[in-house]
Parts: sequence; structure tokens; C-alpha cells
Amino acid sequence: MVIFFPQKHRMAIIILAFLVIHLVFSRSIAMATNPTVLPSWNEGSSKSSILEFVNRVTAENSPDYVPPAERIAVFDNDGTLWSEKPFYFQGFFLIDRLKAMVKDHPEWRNEQPYRTILEGDREAIAGFTEKDIVRLLAVTHTGMTVEEFQTLSIDWLKNAEHPRFNRPFTEIVFQPQLELLDYLRANGFKIFIVSGGGIEFVRAFSEEVYGIPPEQVIGSSVKTRFEERDGRSTLVKLPELGSYDDREGKPVNINLHIGRRPILAFGNSDNDLAMLQYTADHRRSSLILLLHHDDGSREWAYDRDTRIGRLDTALDEATRRGWTIVSIQRDFQRVYPFDRSD
Amino acid sequence: MVIFFPQKHRMAIIILAFLVIHLVFSRSIAMATNPTVLPSWNEGSSKSSILEFVNRVTAENSPDYVPPAERIAVFDNDGTLWSEKPFYFQGFFLIDRLKAMVKDHPEWRNEQPYRTILEGDREAIAGFTEKDIVRLLAVTHTGMTVEEFQTLSIDWLKNAEHPRFNRPFTEIVFQPQLELLDYLRANGFKIFIVSGGGIEFVRAFSEEVYGIPPEQVIGSSVKTRFEERDGRSTLVKLPELGSYDDREGKPVNINLHIGRRPILAFGNSDNDLAMLQYTADHRRSSLILLLHHDDGSREWAYDRDTRIGRLDTALDEATRRGWTIVSIQRDFQRVYPFDRSD
Repeated sequence: MVIFFPQKHRMAIIILAFLVIHLVFSRSIAMATNPTVLPSWNEGSSKSSILEFVNRVTAENSPDYVPPAERIAVFDNDGTLWSEKPFYFQGFFLIDRLKAMVKDHPEWRNEQPYRTILEGDREAIAGFTEKDIVRLLAVTHTGMTVEEFQTLSIDWLKNAEHPRFNRPFTEIVFQPQLELLDYLRANGFKIFIVSGGGIEFVRAFSEEVYGIPPEQVIGSSVKTRFEERDGRSTLVKLPELGSYDDREGKPVNINLHIGRRPILAFGNSDNDLAMLQYTADHRRSSLILLLHHDDGSREWAYDRDTRIGRLDTALDEATRRGWTIVSIQRDFQRVYPFDRSD
Repeated sequence: MVIFFPQKHRMAIIILAFLVIHLVFSRSIAMATNPTVLPSWNEGSSKSSILEFVNRVTAENSPDYVPPAERIAVFDNDGTLWSEKPFYFQGFFLIDRLKAMVKDHPEWRNEQPYRTILEGDREAIAGFTEKDIVRLLAVTHTGMTVEEFQTLSIDWLKNAEHPRFNRPFTEIVFQPQLELLDYLRANGFKIFIVSGGGIEFVRAFSEEVYGIPPEQVIGSSVKTRFEERDGRSTLVKLPELGSYDDREGKPVNINLHIGRRPILAFGNSDNDLAMLQYTADHRRSSLILLLHHDDGSREWAYDRDTRIGRLDTALDEATRRGWTIVSIQRDFQRVYPFDRSD
């Protein structure tokens, strides 16, 4: 909102300006010493590297100063902002959709890959080929309007529960990351999610859960067709891949949607490596963060030896290039919002 | 930026709050009567329909109130924000690129479609087939990194001049539209350009000229490939169409990039019709604007009988559905920023 300052308010404006300067100043002093900044992050090198970077790019007298418009941060979603075990949460949505649809498709009970899903054989599900998954996605995620899909996603997110924690999936998010998003926003960053998950699925909860609006969500997508239904123009989701927002697809889509390189990237697996490299190679100073799932008791422990969220090459690259490896065990004072704080 | 309010500042904050309320209040009174709102728009039904709509969706006690996050406005670029005659300005860029490249490709002097361009035969250029254009775009717009293309575009925009006005193309923008963009932003709208032009070409000037950052520019695009060049990861533009952001492609890309329907759309030709329909069919109140080029002396006059910027079906649909048809002759008090105000 633009506010005009008529002559008679000039004195009040000067007072206000001093007040703002004072408040901002006391705040930046507070930041260096006050444990209320990122309270769910333990003190240590990870937290320090974040605070140090943000101070460096936001201080106007810093040689690394970045104007607000260029403070773009990108976050992977699965395994970075929320958990991704026992498998990607969108997989549970797919299974529940299939179960709801089977009454109209009784033949699926004897047909693969549907049968495996309906029987709940998790081992077999984890071994699905890409072709199986594409077929399942086509059946459960397309052939309806974008708006109908949004309603389905929102309803499911309200009612479904994570099998380990018996809570809605939208609560299985990392409390330290929610605080980091707030902290970055407070420092003028614009945050984008860059997810291998479906763009419309992530958009169904990103605003409410992360405060990230749909236009700042990038993800995998199917093609859509513009058409009229019931006298109203709408978009129908087609069973044809638009973009697979994974690995090299991530920087490609960052360029398509954002149009400039981010200065901060946070990922957790080899699927994020290209996005991390692209950000690291910014001509400006950038911060690269990699979440290491090393806490089997509070969350899950996995890296090189897993199918979902495999962290292997990216771990080596992070070590080689000195990126910040964030350990859930060491750096997260609290993991989920529902965990008791010590 | 988040500012913490310690106890001792409470009184100052209260004073500040009253001040802000007072300033905002005096402003909203001013808006209804003050001709300083949209000064380059003549008083009349077009200007009224804009002011009335914005007041209606921003007044919190209005039944049509729209929360700020959903105040999405989309603008076509060619012919809506800047002129598009004698042909799309990006065409001049293409021609200049080709002329600069011909010294390394002397064979083009005898080869079509290059020869037509190099000889400057505008009639023949206007008659190019889509295949010709795709070939010319491939040669002039791809095979380089995104960053190299950005540099080429920015340099060209600095030096090239429009043949009629002998001024940089970035000055051939509509002054009333610049004011409308500011007015919408001041009222909490987030504005996106949705252009048939190349996404990276439009991004090269959108921030400076319109105040619209690259992540709010949607346009036609070629595919890109993530690769390492000179030890640095980068994206290379490929001679393969990614998306043609025109006609039905516009709502498709609005959904892909924004993820919700706009409540305001402004276009000028049949190429924008699908975008206008998509916005008009929002379940909320929406405003649809169509710019009619009817001023041959100050700008250009054309509608049903032209190749570039043809306005035919969309004009009928606008009349039928009661959309706001903005006349350059009648509604624009001033056309370009360099025009003298009366």
C-alpha cells in the first residue's frame, strides 16, 4: 500500500523514521545473542552458518549485500520440509484414491499394479517401476479438472493420518524448518518450494502449512487442456507428463518459473543435487544446505542405502565443496511441532 | 521485515498506529474524488469500472471482498502494455540478431527465410509461416546459455530504436497502463505478465519498465538443458519448443505458474481470449479489460482486419459478456510517457 505524506505529517514521519531505525537496530543486536532466533535449532555450526549468511547478504554495507528482489531461496519438500518415510506422503494419497475408486473398477482386484496396492504390500510397492507409477498416477491424478483435484487433495489432507505418528501428514513437518522459513521471510527472502512431488498436491497445503503461496510452488506436473465444462471454462488434467521436476529438471524449472538463480538452496537427497549445484554456482554469495536424516529414534536414519530419498553423490559433493550438512540428530533441538521442547 | 515491539516502545507504537490509520483514511477519501488517481486515464466508464472494482474487492466489509493473497492480475504484454506495430518488438530483436550473425553465415544471403529478413522486406516478413518463424527463432534465440541470452536482450533494448518514434522500445509503453500497474499494486494486487512473447526476452525489461519481477513473467519458452560450461553449471537454450504461451496456452500456463485463477485480466486481441474467459469464469467477482487500438494518430488503429494483434472474436465476446472495452482514443488522456500531457 502506498501512503502519501502530506506536508503537515512531515514531523510525525521523521519521528516514525527514527523509531523504525531504532527498532531495527535493537533487533539486529538481539539476533547475534538472542536464542529466540531459530529456537528449535541447536547452537552450532549449522545454525551459525545460516545466521552469518543472512547477516552478510542483508547488511547494506556488506560487500556481499544482495538486494531484496534477488533474495530467492529454494526448498525441496519431501525429506526437507516434511518427512518422506515410509514413502513419499503423496503415495499414501494415491493408495487411498485407488481404494476409493475400486468400487467402480472391480477388475483392479486382479490386475497389476493395482492389486499390489489394494493388498497393501509395501515391499512390492517400493519396488514399482516408473511405468507402474506413471500408470497409477494417470488413473488417480488425472481425468478431472484442476479444481476437482484440489478439492480431493485438501479433503484427503484433512482426514488421512501418518501410520507411525497417527497425526495428519501436515503435522509431520520439521519445526526448525518452519522457523527458518519465517526467519528468511523476515529478512526479505522470497521462498519457493521446488518439489519432485505433484505441483497441485503440494499447493493444496503449502500456503496453510508453510505460508508459501501457490505461485511459489514448483513441482512435477501433467499437461492440462483448456475446455468448457457445464458452461464454464476450466482446465482438465491429462494423463500425459508435463514436467518431471526432479534432478536436472529442478534447475530447469527454477529458471522457467523464477527466472533467476537462487542464493539459498536446501535439499536432502541426490534428487536435489542439480538444484544445489545451480545455486552454488551463482555469481553472488550463496548458501547451500543439505539435510542429513541421521536420527532413527525421533525421525528416520538413512542416506546411501535407500530407495526413497537416497543421499549419496550429493553427500560427497557437499563434503567436497564445503556445503552445510544439517544433522537432524545434532542440529534439530525439536523435530516436529508436536514434539515437546526440552 | 518483522519488527519486535518491546514493552518500552508500546506508546510510540500506538502513536504510529493512529498515524497510519489517519494517512490511510485520508487517502481513501481522496481516491473517490481526486483526479490524481490514474491521471492519464480520462474520466469515463472505463476508469470508473476499474476504480469501482478495486474498491469493491478491497473493502473488507464488501460482499465481494477478496483477501490480498488472491488478488492476482494478469496482463498481456504486446499491444496491452506496449505497442505491437509495425510488428511485435521482439521481431526487431530477431532481425538485428540475424544481421549481426550473418558475417559468420554468409550463405544466408541466398537462403530463405533469412534472405527476406536481411533484405528488410516487411511485407514478406509479415507473411512468414510458423515454420519460418520457428526456424528463425531457433537460430537467433537458442544454442546459448540463458545468461548469455539475457545479456544480448538487455544490450539490444538499450541500443535499438522504434522506427516510428526513434526512441528505445522500452519507452513505447502505455503511460495509463504504468499507472494502472502502480494503482493495483498499491491495492495489494500481485501482477503477472502473460505474454505470447519469449519469457526470457520479456524478463529482460519487465522489472525495470513495469516493476514486475522475473518470477511474475509468464511467456513462450524453449526447452533448456542443465549442463556444465567452463566448470560452472548453467542452462542452455535448446531449439525445441517448451511452451507456446498463446491462446489456450495462456490459461494453461497461468495454472502452471500461478496455481489460481486471476480476478483481473487485461488483453487486447483474440490471442488473449482464453485468458479473459478463464478469469471471467472465476467464482469470485472479476474484472475483464480489453484494449481497443482505435487511435491511428497517436498510436495505431486496427482490430478485425490485421494479422498482428487481430481483435475479432474477443471483441464480440467482450460485447456479449459486458467486459470493459478500453478505447485508446477515448480513455487514454496520454498514450506514451513521452507524450505531452494536455
